[in-house]
Amino acid sequence: MPDASPVVPADRTGPRVFEGTPLRTLDEDALLARVLPLYPTGPDLQVPPGDDAAVVATSPRTVATTDTVVLGRDWLDEWSSGEDVGHKVVAQNLADVAAMGAVPTGVLLTLVADPEVGLEWVLDHARGVARACRDARVAVLGGDLSSASAGVVMVSVTALGRLDVDPVLRSGARPGDVLAVRGELGLAAAGLLLLQQGRADRHPDAVARQRRPRPPLADGPAAARAGATSMLDLSDGLARDAGRVARASDVVVEVEEAALAPDVDRLREALGEREARDCVLSGGEDHALLATFVPGGLPAGWRRLGSVRARRAGEAARLLVDGRPVTRPGWDHFTPGG
Amino acid sequence: MPDASPVVPADRTGPRVFEGTPLRTLDEDALLARVLPLYPTGPDLQVPPGDDAAVVATSPRTVATTDTVVLGRDWLDEWSSGEDVGHKVVAQNLADVAAMGAVPTGVLLTLVADPEVGLEWVLDHARGVARACRDARVAVLGGDLSSASAGVVMVSVTALGRLDVDPVLRSGARPGDVLAVRGELGLAAAGLLLLQQGRADRHPDAVARQRRPRPPLADGPAAARAGATSMLDLSDGLARDAGRVARASDVVVEVEEAALAPDVDRLREALGEREARDCVLSGGEDHALLATFVPGGLPAGWRRLGSVRARRAGEAARLLVDGRPVTRPGWDHFTPGG
Repeated sequence: MPDASPVVPADRTGPRVFEGTPLRTLDEDALLARVLPLYPTGPDLQVPPGDDAAVVATSPRTVATTDTVVLGRDWLDEWSSGEDVGHKVVAQNLADVAAMGAVPTGVLLTLVADPEVGLEWVLDHARGVARACRDARVAVLGGDLSSASAGVVMVSVTALGRLDVDPVLRSGARPGDVLAVRGELGLAAAGLLLLQQGRADRHPDAVARQRRPRPPLADGPAAARAGATSMLDLSDGLARDAGRVARASDVVVEVEEAALAPDVDRLREALGEREARDCVLSGGEDHALLATFVPGGLPAGWRRLGSVRARRAGEAARLLVDGRPVTRPGWDHFTPGG
Repeated sequence: MPDASPVVPADRTGPRVFEGTPLRTLDEDALLARVLPLYPTGPDLQVPPGDDAAVVATSPRTVATTDTVVLGRDWLDEWSSGEDVGHKVVAQNLADVAAMGAVPTGVLLTLVADPEVGLEWVLDHARGVARACRDARVAVLGGDLSSASAGVVMVSVTALGRLDVDPVLRSGARPGDVLAVRGELGLAAAGLLLLQQGRADRHPDAVARQRRPRPPLADGPAAARAGATSMLDLSDGLARDAGRVARASDVVVEVEEAALAPDVDRLREALGEREARDCVLSGGEDHALLATFVPGGLPAGWRRLGSVRARRAGEAARLLVDGRPVTRPGWDHFTPGG
């Protein structure tokens, strides 16, 4: 996260985290009575939240994943409303479910917050969660509320999905496969950069993508049915995530830079050539899907980015862009500068 | 949580949270490489953590629940080792799964920590998680790591379970049913009180129960098969949790104080009569199971505490102990003094 002074763009809506009625003025039941009615049920919910646990209809195989966002690390209050934050943390978890080839069925949600956080922000956040769940026909299966020390606000989501096909792993790419993407590259990172620079008005679509990613959820199971050999959610950027596919599959993944031209074109005017290319290659949080298919097997809506080949003698499993390695490191949670 | 000066009991083991090698000196992959091998797989794990999501074998119905613990609120570093904390947060989640009548199959685990937290504490914590999971034949399905501001350490667990019978809800108690418990009452609260008073040596079993609860997981599904009409995990104390059963089922739950004598007896010498009774009636974190059965239907190991009757005209659905209401309020996450 940036240390530049935040600038509030005109389109920021919703209460700030510490505005309004402090949570400490409500007891837990009163807070739940406000929040729970906002959450959707879904077609698979059999016992709703409120008992020891919820019950959800499942197939013989269930997919499960979890992801957490922290105020000041994963979002800044100046740039993202509660609704944005709620939408995003759900969307990024559902993208991981879809990237296995599964259909999302439910989420569990934990809010750990300073008691000075405003009820209004919490309700705004719940509306974002609800909208992202409703869009995906996913139920809120439960959650937890806990208080935390001054300034701390974090949201943790676990998402479940129903797997009706074999799971598509990142380790399944084979020499000869085509590498393809479903969705745009670099928009979310460009949006973050513009927010950091106080120039959100230069590319509203990019800023919107940063705030509320829209992963192509239905395309995950569809790709699985179409025979995708590997697949993952692009959360950490093409360079890092395609490198993961290469290493997990023990192959070399070759991206053709020309295939990235539409993505770079989309960002060039707002960012300039160098930053646009950096966002497309290394920018995270797009939550597009990256997959490999046998040649000729691309489902509708997918775009070819390159191909997969065997490692040569002594060559590492890795990503190459027009034959060259990508050196930008990506980012990390615990090390400084990460 | 108490504000008394903490006293370190002699049996505290394991590194303190902020001792040793700070997390900031490792990158995320290096940290995962240390932690993940500690976690058990289980019979139901089909795709382990490391891809976008894990895959777990499920029945047509899956139970899901989540619970979070925060340093300084839910545990004190002076009293609980990382292994204690890891064991406890898993056990309390699995207890919720069992209380639905389900068999726990997997957990997802999130650690949000100040980068100054020591690797040694994290590994100690992972060993506690692993042991609690292994004891229950439960897999670690995944997790997330995130950094947080100074002093913040929290662990969030989501637990999943396989439901092979109809779920047992807290709303199913019927007039004429017998109220029963599987497990002891008040031990965990007594352990907390003794830790607060610096007298942990007065009742090591109670202190051990506070640090590492051992919910009777197999008795949840067994009670469901035996026809339990309602069931819940005793996490917030008999008074509060039995009151929940009464309200959810719209009945009056009558506890006979004489039935609590074995629990009070167990604590009287260490705590005195009044505190012992308070712990048994209102102390949380025992993670025993509370259930109702038709008369004559108690499975082995369950102990009768009282009975269920219909509300009289104008009477509220509530808990009565020897005919009298219990006024102690229990505790709450966001309100002061909670």
